[in-house]
This record gives sequence, structure tokens and C-alpha cells, in this order.
Amino acid sequence: MPLTIKELGERKVRSPLYDKFHLNELNFVKDSKRMLYNVMVEDGDPATIKHDLTFELAGPREFLFFEPESVTSAIVTCGGLCPGLNDVIRSIVMESYYRYGAKKIYGIRYGYNGLNPAKGYAPIELTPDIVSEIHTQGGTILGSSRGGTENMEILIDTLQQMGVNILYTIGGDGTLKGAHEIANRALSRGMKLAVVGVPKTIDNDISFIQRSFGFETAYSEAVKAILSAHVEAKGAPNGIGLVKLMGRESGFIAAHATLAMNDVNYVLVPEVPFELEGPNGLLCHLEKRLMNRHHAVICVAEGAGQDLIAMEGNVERDASGNVKLKDIGVFLKEKIESYFKKRAIEINLKYIDPSYMIRSAPAVPNDSIFCAQLGQYAVHAGMAGKTDLVIGQWNNNYTHVPIELAISRRRKINPTSRFWFSVLDATGQPETMVNPK
Amino acid sequence: MPLTIKELGERKVRSPLYDKFHLNELNFVKDSKRMLYNVMVEDGDPATIKHDLTFELAGPREFLFFEPESVTSAIVTCGGLCPGLNDVIRSIVMESYYRYGAKKIYGIRYGYNGLNPAKGYAPIELTPDIVSEIHTQGGTILGSSRGGTENMEILIDTLQQMGVNILYTIGGDGTLKGAHEIANRALSRGMKLAVVGVPKTIDNDISFIQRSFGFETAYSEAVKAILSAHVEAKGAPNGIGLVKLMGRESGFIAAHATLAMNDVNYVLVPEVPFELEGPNGLLCHLEKRLMNRHHAVICVAEGAGQDLIAMEGNVERDASGNVKLKDIGVFLKEKIESYFKKRAIEINLKYIDPSYMIRSAPAVPNDSIFCAQLGQYAVHAGMAGKTDLVIGQWNNNYTHVPIELAISRRRKINPTSRFWFSVLDATGQPETMVNPK
Amino acid sequence: MPLTIKELGERKVRSPLYDKFHLNELNFVKDSKRMLYNVMVEDGDPATIKHDLTFELAGPREFLFFEPESVTSAIVTCGGLCPGLNDVIRSIVMESYYRYGAKKIYGIRYGYNGLNPAKGYAPIELTPDIVSEIHTQGGTILGSSRGGTENMEILIDTLQQMGVNILYTIGGDGTLKGAHEIANRALSRGMKLAVVGVPKTIDNDISFIQRSFGFETAYSEAVKAILSAHVEAKGAPNGIGLVKLMGRESGFIAAHATLAMNDVNYVLVPEVPFELEGPNGLLCHLEKRLMNRHHAVICVAEGAGQDLIAMEGNVERDASGNVKLKDIGVFLKEKIESYFKKRAIEINLKYIDPSYMIRSAPAVPNDSIFCAQLGQYAVHAGMAGKTDLVIGQWNNNYTHVPIELAISRRRKINPTSRFWFSVLDATGQPETMVNPK
Amino acid sequence: MPLTIKELGERKVRSPLYDKFHLNELNFVKDSKRMLYNVMVEDGDPATIKHDLTFELAGPREFLFFEPESVTSAIVTCGGLCPGLNDVIRSIVMESYYRYGAKKIYGIRYGYNGLNPAKGYAPIELTPDIVSEIHTQGGTILGSSRGGTENMEILIDTLQQMGVNILYTIGGDGTLKGAHEIANRALSRGMKLAVVGVPKTIDNDISFIQRSFGFETAYSEAVKAILSAHVEAKGAPNGIGLVKLMGRESGFIAAHATLAMNDVNYVLVPEVPFELEGPNGLLCHLEKRLMNRHHAVICVAEGAGQDLIAMEGNVERDASGNVKLKDIGVFLKEKIESYFKKRAIEINLKYIDPSYMIRSAPAVPNDSIFCAQLGQYAVHAGMAGKTDLVIGQWNNNYTHVPIELAISRRRKINPTSRFWFSVLDATGQPETMVNPK
Repeated sequence: MPLTIKELGERKVRSPLYDKFHLNELNFVKDSKRMLYNVMVEDGDPATIKHDLTFELAGPREFLFFEPESVTSAIVTCGGLCPGLNDVIRSIVMESYYRYGAKKIYGIRYGYNGLNPAKGYAPIELTPDIVSEIHTQGGTILGSSRGGTENMEILIDTLQQMGVNILYTIGGDGTLKGAHEIANRALSRGMKLAVVGVPKTIDNDISFIQRSFGFETAYSEAVKAILSAHVEAKGAPNGIGLVKLMGRESGFIAAHATLAMNDVNYVLVPEVPFELEGPNGLLCHLEKRLMNRHHAVICVAEGAGQDLIAMEGNVERDASGNVKLKDIGVFLKEKIESYFKKRAIEINLKYIDPSYMIRSAPAVPNDSIFCAQLGQYAVHAGMAGKTDLVIGQWNNNYTHVPIELAISRRRKINPTSRFWFSVLDATGQPETMVNPK
Repeated sequence: MPLTIKELGERKVRSPLYDKFHLNELNFVKDSKRMLYNVMVEDGDPATIKHDLTFELAGPREFLFFEPESVTSAIVTCGGLCPGLNDVIRSIVMESYYRYGAKKIYGIRYGYNGLNPAKGYAPIELTPDIVSEIHTQGGTILGSSRGGTENMEILIDTLQQMGVNILYTIGGDGTLKGAHEIANRALSRGMKLAVVGVPKTIDNDISFIQRSFGFETAYSEAVKAILSAHVEAKGAPNGIGLVKLMGRESGFIAAHATLAMNDVNYVLVPEVPFELEGPNGLLCHLEKRLMNRHHAVICVAEGAGQDLIAMEGNVERDASGNVKLKDIGVFLKEKIESYFKKRAIEINLKYIDPSYMIRSAPAVPNDSIFCAQLGQYAVHAGMAGKTDLVIGQWNNNYTHVPIELAISRRRKINPTSRFWFSVLDATGQPETMVNPK
Repeated sequence: MPLTIKELGERKVRSPLYDKFHLNELNFVKDSKRMLYNVMVEDGDPATIKHDLTFELAGPREFLFFEPESVTSAIVTCGGLCPGLNDVIRSIVMESYYRYGAKKIYGIRYGYNGLNPAKGYAPIELTPDIVSEIHTQGGTILGSSRGGTENMEILIDTLQQMGVNILYTIGGDGTLKGAHEIANRALSRGMKLAVVGVPKTIDNDISFIQRSFGFETAYSEAVKAILSAHVEAKGAPNGIGLVKLMGRESGFIAAHATLAMNDVNYVLVPEVPFELEGPNGLLCHLEKRLMNRHHAVICVAEGAGQDLIAMEGNVERDASGNVKLKDIGVFLKEKIESYFKKRAIEINLKYIDPSYMIRSAPAVPNDSIFCAQLGQYAVHAGMAGKTDLVIGQWNNNYTHVPIELAISRRRKINPTSRFWFSVLDATGQPETMVNPK
Repeated sequence: MPLTIKELGERKVRSPLYDKFHLNELNFVKDSKRMLYNVMVEDGDPATIKHDLTFELAGPREFLFFEPESVTSAIVTCGGLCPGLNDVIRSIVMESYYRYGAKKIYGIRYGYNGLNPAKGYAPIELTPDIVSEIHTQGGTILGSSRGGTENMEILIDTLQQMGVNILYTIGGDGTLKGAHEIANRALSRGMKLAVVGVPKTIDNDISFIQRSFGFETAYSEAVKAILSAHVEAKGAPNGIGLVKLMGRESGFIAAHATLAMNDVNYVLVPEVPFELEGPNGLLCHLEKRLMNRHHAVICVAEGAGQDLIAMEGNVERDASGNVKLKDIGVFLKEKIESYFKKRAIEINLKYIDPSYMIRSAPAVPNDSIFCAQLGQYAVHAGMAGKTDLVIGQWNNNYTHVPIELAISRRRKINPTSRFWFSVLDATGQPETMVNPK
């Protein structure tokens, strides 16, 4: 894999951790230490181990690029809310302040827009006192927004004027693209600016990164919506509980919530096409189930079945440039209701869209720990002068991943994987709801 | 007050509780014991005590109308889900079975429709084994539905054929009207059928009854939605969290949730008119708040502002005969968005409609206790041969209330009460959002 | 009832609420308006209404004793933790500050000890900013402690030096006795000091007051401990789950938790004596149950069975002067284990003492509302110059209760009441576990 | 690594999954596919990859040893409760029944004792109906117990008489040793008995297995106890909250709970020795902290500081042969109280021992998914005729681990790891509390 981690320059400053924790050289992570992407070996034959893609290990470096006590940092959160944002902010502040003695830390308001003076959102100064309890609340104390990268040079001007040395960007694909561009334009200006990303995707769909923060909290909260749908479905004749969950391009939240709470009968994800009509379509299967069991629960990821929705007019995009999805939940609700109305079958469909209640939740303990560590590793990377990278996790080790690699393709459910078979097994739905041609 | 409790006839059967609990006469409740509706006294003058309206006390009677061991009971749950339904069912079964030895208990499926053989929903037999754990789940194991009273005589035929002596109906206004009619038609047929209601209104809007089951659970769950709205509102520039809660004609859920979690800036209820436009309208107040604080939370009861919604076409009614409300939540969302769009002010409105997640929740412990006691008192009433009544609560005592009285008028928030002032105080909203004429 | 509410003097200051809320005279509460303690009427005969004990209604008075904007207040929390303390503190601060414009509010640290300069706990100034989020946390931000009333004159000196006009004391019996003494000594010094109590007893055992704050939260949390005990009991051969709950002299928490979660087989409370040995003793009943069902759950209030514990040496008292109870939980654990060891019956007893996890919990929404209103009514009373009283609740109205009356006797479970029969019914335990003499 | 997976014999039966899921050969897992234990590579040099220890991958095999429809299975749960036991039971039943058509499944009561007819615990037959909702409850529906392996031959006789082909044992070290012995004695008797273990250790201390089920739930629950301790500590002058958590030989629960909720000031684990007395002992540090901050929270794992407890008499062992630990919680409580009493410093120590409330909790969603998959993989292994192994997880893949390897040594916190530094960082405690010699 040709992509390597960019660095701002030579590292000469002895890490303050050296003395603070009485560490010896072995406690620091060397850049030469890498971990395998692929861990399989065939037939016990070492020759079959693939070693072309490896990750640099994250962790404290013995020598730093920056003089830590004079570092100015800035933190920005972008895009939609995700559980754990405040945990990551808190961790970056605590690690910078207490471990590295870097006490000048700005919080940028409302995403990249906060770096555009025209918007009028002044940054706030972050201290341990301000952040010490924020991890008990959902959301982000900085505020967030989409977009804001239209005037890239203005953002970089602002960073330069503020004297920022390390910019921590917490956000998704669009945000990371922006971070990549900031990192490279800053480099070409000769600025000593490290840009360190913490990837945020509640959908857990970043390739080369095994787990994204907030994802576990999200599907744990989604379980409650499914439970409600199940109770409603059983509470009325031919009751149908329909739950729409997040998942623009990957159905991991829907699939995990389904696995955790075995009350879903049909789970619909972007990766697996389905049809509504015909003998093998969803509606026909649903009718059969209602005849037998009198209730059903359907869980649909927001990105599922987009091909089924009649496109009216042009494709729309949001401020981050993402294609705006048509609402598959409302679409399915209408299709199901009209199908059964035509057949004069009384149904009781209850539609649940818990989106904001999921993404605004505070992190579950396991996500809290994960976020705290992502923040620490981000600071280690920034202090070492690494830039244009994100902190990832692979096989339970924290890694440095070049932004370009991280956003090169999305992680999706593999419909022929054992994971997806587990999901099918939990729902009992047919392995395909597409009619044979 | 002319309304008195109807009875099926003379009571001669000594209660089995007499021996089971070694009770003496004093432990039983006499019909002659009543409690005052109005408890105020002016200027310490006993003459000012109002004693025209009193309630009969609920509780075990020493003598019963029915031979308890040969009683056949039926339980029916009607209308929308409400926390605690399973608790009430469980309690009626346990009390009938273990205290009175009445072991034949039918569960009617899907509301009154389950008494219409044409619908094909056979009743199920309820035993302690079946109901012992159901209180840990939301919803109703019997299923529920609206309406079903179109063919009243058929329902009564079914009850007669099943040999039902006591019918427990758990439901709201429409259900109680049906129960009233069943009770009286059965009496005129000469049937020995006691009809005992347990009033169900998640909105807590029954007059002459201080508290309805599930209400506390409902506003406790609603608090979570408000918290999410608050997190979302703070998480975006000019963020607005808009939460729609239950409350067709009374805003008690919205008001209590607001009092319990002080993050709401505007609470809109059916009892208090408001305007959108003009200098004292909601939109103008909202704009001022956003200019000052950059975020706002609005909590609206579903019955609020119906006059504001342009009525298109005729009024619709649901299967229970209730007027179908237009969706004030979606209406407000659109009005707010277009108001700020016109002014070119960027806002981020997040609309949360947690309805089904609230009403499908299992009861909080305090509601569990309340439901258990409602069920016990309902059985005491039925065994004593009382009919055409509901079990109520007044000043912490359980009461017998004639159905006609219970449904004679709705309880509403009094906009000049200290309770509503507490709510205004908690939100800081103006005491009126109507423009002077 | 001879006890009447004491007042500091004539009231001449028009309430600022008059203008703020556009109230008219009818919105204020007159002292002449009282409510009946006893609400029963026999045989429909008005002559049987008891009207000798009535309560003064709490609420805003049209005229105040103090000039509100120049009032200095102090809040003190005493004794053990109780859910809702922070809610009450918050409400007093908000009401004083925003409604009455009384902005000088001291928080006394660590109970009455904080009024003794020798202890070195300086008071803190409380503002809306400081208290705005504290209701989401358990405990008390002021800290608390027992005792501290040994040097009463010193406390009053401190209050005088601080210029305190209204002292809000939140605490139990001992605290209220102290408040009573402070109120009266201050009066005899000629100080204009109103002392307003908010009674705090997690056990809900104050007479003449229907409900104490934190009680519902306490038994709601206790339900979780009982559930654990049940799971443990079923998880091992002859498993016994033994839960000790609060309840020094009254077993309301144990009884309510038992009613809310029907998994308890034996509930032991201070009001109902029981024996261990003999054919009708607990141990014999327990043995029979284990032979039949192989598991059992016992819930014991801390004050139960004190007579059974061999008293060694003298009675001990804590700093508040309360008799220190011997630990009935550990005592029972040992007695049960040795009983079955003698009989060579293997049991698996799991002892759960959730005390601190219960009392440190944040308030459930219903308690939050209650606490908020107690605080508001306390401020109304103080501003009106009422002193030596507590804010109570009776039949869903807020009341003024003279401290002497409030602490004159404890509320206890009546073992012949329908409430206790409900509890027996829920457990299935014998109505007495005392052997006939 | 010489340890390989034992098998009962040649596999000839085509898996029913082949047709059910339209799988092709690629969907099945081949024994030859293994994964690396060590994933690091030095200096980008492939020669540095260690490949001596690899794991066999778990998963469905194309060919089975047993004719699945005629398989008789038995499930046994041993040792203390752990969140997720019912999830694992449920998953084994569902997978056996629906995927493999193996419908004869026994649940053994109360651990290995249930295989000893002398104990009189008859097995129960497990069906999908019985297990469908059990994952919502904590504990184990089978009951559990320690020990029971004294008469190994009797247990095997029972299995033989019941015709058991696959025995699923869910338990810890002692249980797995028993399973190993059963597997091997059965083999030498010529029985066709596959013994498949699911390792259960709430402490997460099994080597060669990255994660044990229930561990995440455990530390998530422990967080609540720490929060209570924090509230209590702040609520009294010199308040000390002392929480004892599970962790006989490894402090992972204490360490993770500490990381998730940053309110702990001292965390004490078995792996890191500490002293009480002396200038660098815990007591002296604690005194300094109280002088500065007036409150402190201590979290101690049950196996910590055992060397400090004066051993009186002989070492005790429980029925599983584990050394019984002396109670470090009570020991510390006494030491701390007497230390400050001697110095006449008033402290308020609140001791919280939430053990049973943690281990009886139902699994959090992430553990539910994990348990479901462990159960599925266990059935795949058993059907393929693999024996004397446990299902593990390594680098996010499910693995087959020989029992001997799994119990060969315990996983412990490495006090020089970055993980432990994170913990120290979160608490701020000194890196050592041992006095220099």
C-alpha cells in the first residue's frame, strides 16, 4: 500500500511523558512498528500471509515535532450529531492540557463555518474545568454544522491568524476531505499545521477502520425503538411496527439492532436490493406473515430501497454535498397501507423514526472508553507532527490511517458473509426478496 | 349529586376474604362510607364545607352478589396503547383467582371487536401462569383496537353465550360509553352482568378522577424526547428542537414533562390559544430568542393550535368517533421553516415525534403499584355486584364513580391556576402569545 | 387543633407576582382558606364530617412581610442523602431570584455545621447559573451532615451576622427540631428571621404529610435490587436473595418496592413483629418454601426485627441523636445460614444492601416536579413572613404545617389496613409469623 | 504451537446449511484457514511476522460429523452468574433447532451437579418457545452451581444414558477443566461426545481470548456504583466513596469502569501492589487529597491487596477449588477509618459492594450480539465433531481454542502497558504507592 503518513518535519523534542511517567524507551511507539491488515494464513503456510497492507501504530512518540507547552490547538466538530462527540473533545483537552502541558485550546463553533469570520461564531477557549463533565451529555458543546468548506483559503487564513499548530477535526467523509485539503494547502503555504482527524460516522461505514465511535450507542438506542415497534405490532390486529434507522449507504445499525433484539421480521439495508411487488416481494411475504402471525416488525435503514422510490425531479444534495435520500420510511408506510387497503385487509401500521433520539444520546460506557482513547491517540499524533491522517482501530490496536485511504471507499455489509447470515437467521426473512427474472 | 352506583341486586354471599385474612367487619368497606369531593373550608367556618358531591369508597365488601368461585370474568382493553395495561390485566387475574377463587377468566382479543364472532378473534383463557410476568412488558397481551361497538347487541349476545358475570373494560371515553351501554342493555335483558371500568387515558384528562394510570410513565418517557430536542437544538446554529407530545384536549403530559426537565422554552397546549404571526405571536418571540440565545426548544401537545390549521375539506373521525386532529407538529415545523426562510435566517429545526415510544413503554414502579391496586378494586366492585361504574382515585382514596359522571366532562389545564403559572415560570415564555386586538 | 402557623408580623408589601403575572386577587391564596384533614362522611350525613383539624393552604400571598428584593436567604441540607435535594435547592434559588427578585442566596455547607464558623466551611453564593443543571445529579451540591446543633446560639449568631432573613432547612426530624429552636430563639432575640422547612425523609414517615420527596425515587431504585435478588435466587440451588432496604421505623420503601415488583416472598417491616424460630417462624416457612420452589426472596427494612437482635452493651446514637440500629440484614443472613447448616441443607444466600446506590440516585421525573413545587411554596411562605413551619402535601394540595405538629409523631404502616393486605397478597406470606403463645 | 483441535472422527454428512441458505463452498470455513495470534511487523520486514501461534477459525463446516437431525444436545451453566448466560443458552437452542434441525436439547440444572442423579435435579427440555424471551432477563434459567466434578464417572454415565452427543459447557476455569476431563474420558470410553465450551469469566481474564461475554455489561453496571460513590463522597465533609468490584486475579472491570466514568481517584487492582502505610502509601495520599479536595473515590478489585490482609489460619477454597479471597473492601474500610480516627480527622466513608447487582444484570446490546454469535459458533463446532475446545474471539474473528491452551494462563493487566497508563491518567493517582526500600 503506497499511502504513508505525512509528517511536518524532523522530531527533536523529548516527550514530557518521558519524565512524567518514568517511561523508558520501550514504552513509546516507534514508527517502524506496524500491524498487518490481513491476519489470515492458509494451510498453516506462512507464505500465504498477506503483508502488503500494514498500518502504522498510533501511540506516544519519544520525540515530538512541537514544543508541547507552546502548542495552540483547535478542535472542530462537523456534520450530524453522534454519541461520544463530547467524550472526544474532553479527552483531547485533558490529554493536551495535563499530559503535554499544551494549555491553549480553541473550540471552533458550528463546524468549519466557525473558521469563517464572516459567520460571526467566535471560538471558545477550552479548559479542563469547562470540559470535565461534558461526557455525561449527548451532542457537542461546540455545536456542529455541515459544509463550510467553500472558502478553503479563508479557513486557513483564520487558522494561521489564530496561530493554530494542531487542528483536530471530528467528522465524516466530507469533513475529512476538507481536513485533507486544509492539511495540504497549509503545507504548501509552509505552515506548521498538523491536521489530525477522528473519523465520525454513526453508521460505522469507514473502510480500514473496524469501529467508529458512537456506533454501539446508536444501535443500543435503536434497540429501544424496535422494542416499541414490537409492542405496538402485537397490540393491534394485523399490527405492523415499522422502524426507520440511520444507514445511508451501509445497514450496520439496522443489522446490529436486529441481532441484539430478536423481534424484527424483515430488515432492509442499502446493500441488499429488494422488491415490493410480485410473489417474492416484501408485500407478499408480509401478507403471508400477517395471515399466520397477525403482527410484524420491519426495520429499514434510511438508504435502503432508494431505487424503488420514484425519482421526481433532480437529485438534491445537502450542504456537505451528500445526496439527499428520499424518505424510505414514509414511502414504505404508504406502499404497505395502500397494498392492504386494496385487498380490504385491515392493518394497523405504526411508524417510528427515532433518529434524533438516537444520535443525541450520551455514549454508552464502552463508547466512552473508546472516545477517550481516540482523543489521547489524536494528541499523540499531533504532537509528533503527523498530519493528514485519522486515528483508526484495527484488530484492537489504534492505528494511523492516511485520510486518503480512510475515505477511499465505504465499508458495507457483505451479503454473502456469515455476519449477514446471522442477521437472516435472526429475522427468518427470505435470503432474497427479488423476483426471479 | 344525583348519580349513584348501580347494583345488580341484594348481596348475601359472605366474602371469602373474611376467612382468608382473618378480617373482622371493620376491615370491609361499607357503602355508607363516602368521601368529600371538595375539601376546602373558608375562614375556618364548617358551614362552608361543600358536601353535595361525595364519592362511594372502593374496597372489599363483606357480602358479595356473586358466588365467587363460580364467577366467569372477561377482560377487554380498548383504544391506543397506554403504559400499565398489562399490570391492570395481571392484577385482575391474580385478585380474581387467588383471593376470590374465580378461576374462569377470559381475555377478549383486540377490544370490543373480540366480542364480535364475525371478526374471528377467539378469546384466550387467562391464568396466573400466563400473566405472572406480563407487567414487565409494555402494551397489552390481549391486543387492543378502537370502535367495535356498532353492533352492541352482538357483543352482549357473545357475553351471554360465554356466561360472563363480570366484564372489566379498560379504555377511554368511547370505551366507557360502550361499557355504559352494555351495562344497561344487559340489565334490561335481565342478565346478571356487572360491568366495571378502569379508565384509561394517557392524557390524564378524566374529570372527577385525580390520576389515570400510565400518565406518569408517559411524561417520564417524554422527558427523554425533550432532552434529545435540547441536545439537538444546542448542537447546530439556530437550532430548534420541536417535540410533539400526546394531549388531544388537555396538555397535561406536555406541561408535566416541561416541569420535570427545565429545558423547554415554549410549551403549547390545547387549553391556551396562541398565534403565530404578529408582534406577540410565537414566531416573533422565537426569532428574538434565537437572536439572543441561538437555540430553542418547543414542546407542543397534539391538540394545540388546531384553530390555526387551515381546515381543508370535512372533519375526519377515527373508528372510536374521535375527531382526527391535524398534525400540529408538522404544521408548526413548516410554518417556522418558511418564516425564517423568508427572513434569510438559517435555522436547523429537528422535529421529534416520540408518540409510540412513549405509549408502548412498560409502567414505571409508581404506575405499576397504581395499576395493581386499580385491578384489585375493580374485582372487589364486580364481586359485590356493582355495575356501570369505573374505579377512580380521589384524594388518595380509591372510589366508585358512575360512568356517566366520569365521562360527563374532560379535565383540562386551568390557564389561571398556580399549576399553569409553575409551567410558565419553568419555560419563561410570555403568559400569552395572542396579539391584542 | 391548637397549632397555628407563626408569622413574623404584619404584611404590607405588595407581591411582585401581582404585576409580573398580571394576577388578580383571586390568584393569591388567603390565609383564611384551609383544607380538611379528614375527608370522610358517614351515611351521607354532613354532621359526620370531622373539621377539627385543618391545614393552612400554601401558595403565594398578595402581601409580603419582606421587601423581596432586599431579602437575604440561606439554604441548608442536613442528614443523609435523599433523591431530589438538588431539585429543591434549585427551585428555591430560581423562585427567589426570578420571581421575587431576591438575589442574595447563601448555600450553607455540610448541614448546620456550616453555620458554625469553627468548622471552617464557608458558605457559597448560589445563583441561577450555578444551580441550573444540578437537578440532573443525585446528592446535594451543598454537602450535608448530621447534628451540628449543639451550639445553637452560635448558629443564630452566624445567621444574624450574615443578615439572613429566610432560612430554608431541608432535613428530617432532628433537623426540624433544630429549625424549630432556631425559629423561636431568633424570635425571642427580636430577629426578623423566617425559618421554613422542607421535610426530608426517604422513608416517607412524616405524619400529617402524605408524601415526602425522594421516596418514589427510592422505592423505584429498590425495585432493581429486588430484581437482582430474584435473579440470584433462581440461579442457584436453594437460592435465597436477601435485600435490606431503608426504613428505620416505617417499612414504606420495602412495602412499595414489593408491590411494584412482585418477586418478593417475605417482606419484613418494623411495624409487624415476626419470629425466627418455631413452627410459625420465618425460618420454618422459608424451609418449606425452599422444599417446594427451591428459591426465595426476602426483603427486610432496616428497622425490622430489632427486638430479635441480642443487644450487647448500651444503645448507641448517631450525631443526630437517632438510635443506631443493629444490622438486621447481616443478622438475618447469619441466622438463616446457620439454620440450614444445622439441617445439612445446602443453600445459596446472596445478600444485597443497595442503600447508598438508592439514596444517591437523581430524582425520577415525578419527584423532580414535586421538589420543584416544594421549593416554590417554601419561598412563598418565607416571603410572607411565615416561620417555624414546613411545607407539606395533603390530598394533593400544598400545605403549611407547624413544625411541632409535623414532628409530633411518625407515620407508620397500619398492619390492619388495606394497604398492608395488598402487600401480603403480593408476597403470599402468612399474615403473621409469630407463634401462638 | 503444538495444541491442535481434537475431533471425533471423519466428517461425511453434508451440512443442512448448504441447501437452506443456498451457500456455496466458499461460504463454509475450512479447517486449513487459520489466523495469526501476533499481528505486528517490525520495520516493514515480513520476516518479522510471528506465525508460530495461529488459531483455527470457527464457523460452519461443509461436512459434519453428526447426522444433525438425530443429535441430542445438553447445555450446562456453571459457577457464578454472569450477564449473557441466557443469551448463550437461547442461541444454542435456536441454532441447533432451526438451522441444524437438532430438536432434542436438554438443559442441565445447577451446573455439573445436575448430571449427578443423586442430587435429584432432573434436566429440562429446551425448545424455541421456552427460550425465546429469556435473553431479556439476567441470570440463567438453568440455574448454576460451583463444583460437582468430584464424581466424574457418574457425570459421564449420565451423559451416556441420556444419549448426549454434544455437551455445551458454559463456565470458567474450573468448569473448563471439568469439560476437558469429560471430553477425554468420554473419548477413551469410545463415546461419540463432543464437548464444546463457551468460556465465562466476568473478569475478562482468559488468555488467548480477547473478550469474554458479560464483561462489558459488568463494567457498564459498575459505572453506576462509581457514580453513587462519587455523589456520596461529595455529599459529606471528607466524604470517601469506596467501591469494591469483581476481579479476583485481574482488575479489568475496575480499570474499565474507571476509564468510562472519570470520577475515581484511586483504583487498586491485583496486578499492581500497593502499601497502606508510609509516605507513599495509600493512606497518606488519601489524607493529602482530603485536605485539598474534601472528598475521594476509591475503586478496589476484590483480588487487590491480598498480601496486605493478615492471613489468619489456613487458606480456604470454594467448591470450584478457587482460593477464597479475604474481603479487601471491608479491610480497607476499617484501615481507613482507624487511620483517620487516630488523627482525629472526621471522615464519612460510604462502602458500596454492588457485586450481585452487577452479575445479575441482563446483557447490554453489544454483549447480546456477542453471546448470540458465541452460541452459533459453538453449535457449528459441535456438529462438525470438534471436541475439547472453547469458542474464542481474536482480532474480531471467532476462533477454536483447545481447552488446555485456554486455561493455561490468565490474562492480566500489564502495569507497563499504555492501557494502564490511560487508567493512571484518568485517576491522577501516583504510578506507584509502594514506599522505596
